[in-house]
Amino acid sequence: MCETNVYIDNDGKEELYLENVDIVRPEGDRIFMKSLFGEQKTFEGSIKEISLTKHRIVLKR
Amino acid sequence: MCETNVYIDNDGKEELYLENVDIVRPEGDRIFMKSLFGEQKTFEGSIKEISLTKHRIVLKR
Repeated sequence: MCETNVYIDNDGKEELYLENVDIVRPEGDRIFMKSLFGEQKTFEGSIKEISLTKHRIVLKR
Repeated sequence: MCETNVYIDNDGKEELYLENVDIVRPEGDRIFMKSLFGEQKTFEGSIKEISLTKHRIVLKR
């Protein structure tokens, strides 16, 4: 399966922010995201890196 | 499988830019990306939307 999680880079320490993400959409200085189960979150920051083989999307402030 | 492709939104028309992407990393006003097979590309623009269930990453100028 392709379950991908969103993490926040917090001064080099990564914390899990949203599991099983489907949609990730930058909106100005925020990142909107929605999980496979409909959970929605908005994070003030930007995308640091996406690694699809590692199933990870890392955001930063 | 989780093969994801990168598309460019070109005035509402999407064109395929890179197949089987692994890494996508914003670097200033550019997006660096690398495919599963090591192909590397850099696009001047930003991320419009990621949809993991649709296996699509859309960039815009």
